[in-house]
Amino acid sequence: MEDKNMLMIPGPTPVPEKVLLAMAKHPIGHRSGDFSKVIAELTENLKWLHQTHNDVLMLTVSGTGAMEAGIINFLSPGDRVLVGNNGKFGDRWAKISRAFGLQVEEITAEWGKALNPQAFGEKLAADTQKQIKAVIITHSETSTGVLNDLETINQYVKNHGKSLIIVDAVTSLGATNVPIDAWGLDVVASGSQKGYMIPPGLGFVSVSQKAWKAYETAKLPKFYLDLKKYKKATDENSSPFTPPVNLMYGLQASLQMMRSEGLDNIFARHRRLTQATRAAIKALGLPLFASDEAASNAITAVAPIGVEAEKIRSVMKKRYDIALAGGQDHLKGKIFRIGHLGFVSDRDILAAIASLEATLIELGYESFSPGAGVAAAASAFANV
Amino acid sequence: MEDKNMLMIPGPTPVPEKVLLAMAKHPIGHRSGDFSKVIAELTENLKWLHQTHNDVLMLTVSGTGAMEAGIINFLSPGDRVLVGNNGKFGDRWAKISRAFGLQVEEITAEWGKALNPQAFGEKLAADTQKQIKAVIITHSETSTGVLNDLETINQYVKNHGKSLIIVDAVTSLGATNVPIDAWGLDVVASGSQKGYMIPPGLGFVSVSQKAWKAYETAKLPKFYLDLKKYKKATDENSSPFTPPVNLMYGLQASLQMMRSEGLDNIFARHRRLTQATRAAIKALGLPLFASDEAASNAITAVAPIGVEAEKIRSVMKKRYDIALAGGQDHLKGKIFRIGHLGFVSDRDILAAIASLEATLIELGYESFSPGAGVAAAASAFANV
Repeated sequence: MEDKNMLMIPGPTPVPEKVLLAMAKHPIGHRSGDFSKVIAELTENLKWLHQTHNDVLMLTVSGTGAMEAGIINFLSPGDRVLVGNNGKFGDRWAKISRAFGLQVEEITAEWGKALNPQAFGEKLAADTQKQIKAVIITHSETSTGVLNDLETINQYVKNHGKSLIIVDAVTSLGATNVPIDAWGLDVVASGSQKGYMIPPGLGFVSVSQKAWKAYETAKLPKFYLDLKKYKKATDENSSPFTPPVNLMYGLQASLQMMRSEGLDNIFARHRRLTQATRAAIKALGLPLFASDEAASNAITAVAPIGVEAEKIRSVMKKRYDIALAGGQDHLKGKIFRIGHLGFVSDRDILAAIASLEATLIELGYESFSPGAGVAAAASAFANV
Repeated sequence: MEDKNMLMIPGPTPVPEKVLLAMAKHPIGHRSGDFSKVIAELTENLKWLHQTHNDVLMLTVSGTGAMEAGIINFLSPGDRVLVGNNGKFGDRWAKISRAFGLQVEEITAEWGKALNPQAFGEKLAADTQKQIKAVIITHSETSTGVLNDLETINQYVKNHGKSLIIVDAVTSLGATNVPIDAWGLDVVASGSQKGYMIPPGLGFVSVSQKAWKAYETAKLPKFYLDLKKYKKATDENSSPFTPPVNLMYGLQASLQMMRSEGLDNIFARHRRLTQATRAAIKALGLPLFASDEAASNAITAVAPIGVEAEKIRSVMKKRYDIALAGGQDHLKGKIFRIGHLGFVSDRDILAAIASLEATLIELGYESFSPGAGVAAAASAFANV
C-alpha cells in the first residue's frame, strides 16, 4: 500500500514526525549567531548521550566516514593495530586500516559469534614492547546482530596502557549502554540514521584526551576528516566546513526527545524490544543467528530452516509493507535481520511478529502454532 | 521578525517548499528497489545538469569533501600540481594539496581579481617534460565573487595534453555554463547547498575517462572518498555507503524543477540577477569588489566606502531579516557579499536592494539618491 512502509532494518531507522518537520524548515546561515546556538545545544546533548566530557564532533559523512576519521587521525603508516573482525563492519575497519598502510592483525570469529575478549588479552599482554597502537572494535556488529564484549576487551586495552581503543558504536550508541567516560573509551564513532532517530548524513566521533595526544604525532594525511579542525570549530560553536543544517535541525529535535525519555529508559526499551523479538522468534521455531549472551539490542538476525529468508523478506515487504534486512556477503539469502533500533515501540514489534506469522503461514511453513510468536512477545513485554 | 529570514548568502541558499516537503518524507531503505529508482533518476538528471556523459558521483560530504575526493583519487605523493589561488577556496585547495604531500606551485592573484590564464599557459608550455599532473582551479571564487576564466585556462591544459584539469564548480554549477563534455573537464566538484537548491550535506564529483585512467596509478590512500567505490555502486543504481536518503529526496524534487526551467533559462536568470544587482550597487555609489569582466553569477561582493560593511549586514539582518555574507579572512569587515544563487528570483533582488537602500539611509550614508538602486535594478531587468 502506498506510503505504508515500515522500516525494520538497521538503518535508516524510523524517524519521528517531529524530526521530519524540523528538517523541513528553511535553512539558515551556518555562520549565524542563531545557528551557533543550535550547535551549542547539539554539542551539549551529544555529550549527554555519549556519557562523556570528551569532545563529540559532528561530521558530514556516513558511519564509515566517521569510523575512517576515528582511525586516520590517531595513527601513522606502519602502526600496528589489532582489529576485531566477526562481520561485515569489522571486516571494513580491517580494510580501511590496510588502505591507510597500517600493520593489521585481525582477531576473528565466525560471523554470528562474538569476538573472544581473551584473544585480545593475550595479544596485548604479549606486547611488552607496547607496539600495538590501537585496538579497533565493532561494538554491535550490524551484519549479524552480535554484540561484542567491549567492556572486557577494553579492560585488556587499559591493562596494556599504551594502546588506544577505537570503537564502532554505530548500532550500539543510543541503544546500548556505552559509558565512554566510565570505561575510558578513546574514540567512539557513530552515525545519525541509527539510535539517533534521524536520517543518514551525519557522523559523530568522540575523542579522549589520550587520543588527542596521539593525534599530535599521527602522520596519516587528512584534511576534510581532520578532527582537530572540527574540535577547534566546535569549541567556538561553529563548524570547519558547511554542515548539514537541516539534518542538524532534525538532530536538535531528536536529542530533545531522547533527553525526555532518559538514557536508562532508552536502553531498557531496546532491551525489551530485543527480548520480545527473540522470544517470539524462538516460539516460531526459527533459529536465532546470535546467542542470547551475544545479542545486540539493535538487531536480531534469524537463520530460518524450512523456509527461505528471501521469500520471507519478499512477502513481508509486498503484503505487509515491512522492510526487513537481508544477509550481507556470504550470508545473503541465509539470514534475515529485524531492526529494532531507534524510534521503535513495543507495538512495532507486535506488528512485525504478527506479520511474520502471517507470512510464514502464507509460505507453508508449519513448524509453529499460529499465535505463538505474538504470545511470546506479549509475555516478554509483561515480564520485563 | 520570527521565521522571516531571507537567505542572500552564497550557501546555504534558499530551498523551495517542494524540496523541503520532499525531505520531510519518511526515509526508506537505501538498498531497496524503490530507492534504486531514485538513484537512477538522480544520476540521469545530474548528468543533464553537468552537460556530460562522464560519471557524476554523489558523496555524503560538504563541498570541501567533494573537492578533496577530486584531488586525492587521481594523484600520488610528490606529484606536481598547479593551483590557482585568488581567494579563500583557491587557498584551501592549495592547503589540501600540501596536506596530501603534493608538490604545489601556486598561481596567485589578489583577492578580488581574476587569475591570469596566461600565467597557466606559460607554466604549462614550459613543462616540456610533462611533469604537471593536474591544474586545480576554483571557477567561481565564493569568497570574492570573482569568476575565473576556466575556459581559457582549460585550453592551455588541453594544449599541454597530459595534465588533468580539476575544477571547484561549487558556486558555478547550476548558475553558470560549465559544459563539461564540450570543454573536456576532467574532474568537477560541487555541493548541494548552492545551485542545486537543496540544503547542505551532499557533494558531487564528475569524473572523465582520462581521470579514471589517472586513478589507476594514483597512490594516495583513500577509502571513504575512494571514487571507484562510488562509480561501481552508481553503475548498479546503488551507493557504497549509506547515502543521505532524505537529502536525495530533496535533490529529486530540485532537479525536476531545474529540468522544467531548462539550463539556458537557469543561466540567463543568474546573469540577469547579477546584472541587476551590480547595476543597483553602482547606482548606490558603492564600489563593486570584482570587475564586470570577472563577475561571478552567484555572488556579488561590495567593498563599501563611507559606511561599514558589518553595520550594513547588521541592520539588514535585524530590521529586514536578510542574511548577507561578510568578508572572510583578511576581508573581514571590508566587504559584504550578496548571494543570488539557486532559488532566487528577480523579486528577491528588488527586495534586497530596496532593503539595502533603507539600511544605508538608516546608517546616514548619503552618497546616493534614494530609489536609485531599485531603479537601476528595474532597468536592468527591463533590458536583459
